Amino acid sequence: MSIIPVQIPAVLTPVVILARPQMGENIGATARAMKNCGLMSLRLVTPRDGWPNPAAEPMASNAADILETAEVYDSLPDALHDIGYLVATSARSRNMEKPVFTPREAITELVKRQASQHQGESQRSALLFGAERSGLDNEELMLADCVAQAPLNPESMSLNLAQAVLLMAWEWRMATLADSEQLADGPEGVSAPADLEKRAYFMLRLQDVLEREGFFSNAEMAPIVHRNLTCLLARSAPTEQELNTLHGILTHFERNTEAGGDNS
Amino acid sequence: MSIIPVQIPAVLTPVVILARPQMGENIGATARAMKNCGLMSLRLVTPRDGWPNPAAEPMASNAADILETAEVYDSLPDALHDIGYLVATSARSRNMEKPVFTPREAITELVKRQASQHQGESQRSALLFGAERSGLDNEELMLADCVAQAPLNPESMSLNLAQAVLLMAWEWRMATLADSEQLADGPEGVSAPADLEKRAYFMLRLQDVLEREGFFSNAEMAPIVHRNLTCLLARSAPTEQELNTLHGILTHFERNTEAGGDNS
Repeated sequence: MSIIPVQIPAVLTPVVILARPQMGENIGATARAMKNCGLMSLRLVTPRDGWPNPAAEPMASNAADILETAEVYDSLPDALHDIGYLVATSARSRNMEKPVFTPREAITELVKRQASQHQGESQRSALLFGAERSGLDNEELMLADCVAQAPLNPESMSLNLAQAVLLMAWEWRMATLADSEQLADGPEGVSAPADLEKRAYFMLRLQDVLEREGFFSNAEMAPIVHRNLTCLLARSAPTEQELNTLHGILTHFERNTEAGGDNS
Repeated sequence: MSIIPVQIPAVLTPVVILARPQMGENIGATARAMKNCGLMSLRLVTPRDGWPNPAAEPMASNAADILETAEVYDSLPDALHDIGYLVATSARSRNMEKPVFTPREAITELVKRQASQHQGESQRSALLFGAERSGLDNEELMLADCVAQAPLNPESMSLNLAQAVLLMAWEWRMATLADSEQLADGPEGVSAPADLEKRAYFMLRLQDVLEREGFFSNAEMAPIVHRNLTCLLARSAPTEQELNTLHGILTHFERNTEAGGDNS
């Protein structure tokens, strides 16, 4: 083994997002695992016991700085405002049209995306973890670009939250160290995708228009179609310009159908 | 990713040995991490608080069986009575004539040794972890065949004990799965995309509708928008069902705007 410690610019390190974490101890242990692997940005979406949480500190070891700079958000879309590539972690298979990778494959993908970013762009990637008891729900999961599912013992698939964070952070660290010489020049050709907040906004608007236009013959269809289209859009990783084109089309249809009156 | 659960004979799975563990909670969390990765044999050398330790159980989740079958030894040499290859973990470099590997390299070595064992031999391999506060001492470390040292953040090299166990157990699991060719290539979870003809047909129809609806304010825009949207759709690799949804939306807009008359 011969590894020279590398200093990786913060903007190239993934953010760790905990959705609805329950135990302060796990948030503390998450911070420690992050720091072990060189990840420094932690975001908490509606932590059960509020924030700051004194139960986190003893478990954080020397990662108190990560707890101090942790950001708290009211919703997952808010927490994704500047995120360009999102890896969600899940122990279970879901029926969602979304690529499912091993952690190692997912991290390879994440590092590749990060490396292909154009200079000056500041979009970050993120690793998303669900609540201890239940993991991520479908509403959360569908916002992700891909799902990382670890091929664990089928009789014991559920990792402790901080263990799951360590596993992903460790894979990121190994991939980055192996890759560090190539981080500067990634593949060219595809511009950076729009951030997830903008994608989520387009999907909300599309759903809204479809509902107002009477597209759904029954109300049960709406969430299914919404989920399917969100997964489709996530896979395409649209650029901001492409999203603008899609908005333009939507606006045009709206204007034309307004002229047509109520057809529902 | 496509994984068929594998049943690995117990004799081919490494034993986890904790030397002088202090916290029952960490022993419990160790058992959980082991079971997650399919390791079942735990040995404890002079645990500080004796054994069994009620503090271990809550952290073990569904790995109570590992705690129940854990073996306790009075000395590390005793715990090694049937071990043929020993990987010691350490956060610090020691001046010892002993190969130092990354965890991934050390596990590769361990799996190789295991595989080269002659049939009928019953020597096992083991992963050795030191006490929480101080790690392994030199007397313990010198018994090992090699040292695994994780290339962590130089500012935060010390992993929680159970995190260190997970890291090694995870590397073992990935190496073993890769070795038994259980890790097939390619993401799971996304259905096969619709064929290119069907995608091209959707794009033609979309362009046709946009033209008839007067979307293009000048004629030069049309081929550019068409190209951009085609690239976007190609990247998302839509399934046939997803294309049908998109066709449905287009049909619906057409119908609604027909009612609205000519807006060009």
